[in-house]
Amino acid sequence: MEKVPHQTNAVLIGKKPVMNYVLAIVRLFNQEGVDEVIVRARGGNIYKAVDAIETTKNLFIKNLKIKKFDINSEEMEDDKGTKRRVSSVEIVIYKE
Amino acid sequence: MEKVPHQTNAVLIGKKPVMNYVLAIVRLFNQEGVDEVIVRARGGNIYKAVDAIETTKNLFIKNLKIKKFDINSEEMEDDKGTKRRVSSVEIVIYKE
Repeated sequence: MEKVPHQTNAVLIGKKPVMNYVLAIVRLFNQEGVDEVIVRARGGNIYKAVDAIETTKNLFIKNLKIKKFDINSEEMEDDKGTKRRVSSVEIVIYKE
Repeated sequence: MEKVPHQTNAVLIGKKPVMNYVLAIVRLFNQEGVDEVIVRARGGNIYKAVDAIETTKNLFIKNLKIKKFDINSEEMEDDKGTKRRVSSVEIVIYKE
């Protein structure tokens, strides 16, 4: 049976514990069989994105490599309606 | 007069406001004339590293590009002597 193509190889880092994202990455590679995973994070979650990738590499996928790293920023409004610029990252990883 | 070679093209992101690091990066490129700048940060400062690069690009150096992005981790002891792994990044940037 042919595999149906899908665009679910992205992990958006949010407020959950880092291990949730580690397991999401591992599942994409090992169960879904994707070639690469796109990890996206914004603002204060950027550290968690790096941490998730590093933890995935240390604990589960030794040959994990970074293919692409992009940074960007977008203007956002906070609760009080004040506009501020928030940085974001997109990190593409793959198994060598 | 020949320029003396130096290895001061690295910026370590710490506790200062992000604009300090933005100005450090701009000074390295525009006054010191280095070809590339290495931005290093650890743990919670990783966001600030991304922010500094993004702000430098938006405000001062439009053609700023990322050459290399590495992540790593090291074991550290906190105040109570508990060992924990802290992720770090090294981002090499250049003017295109």
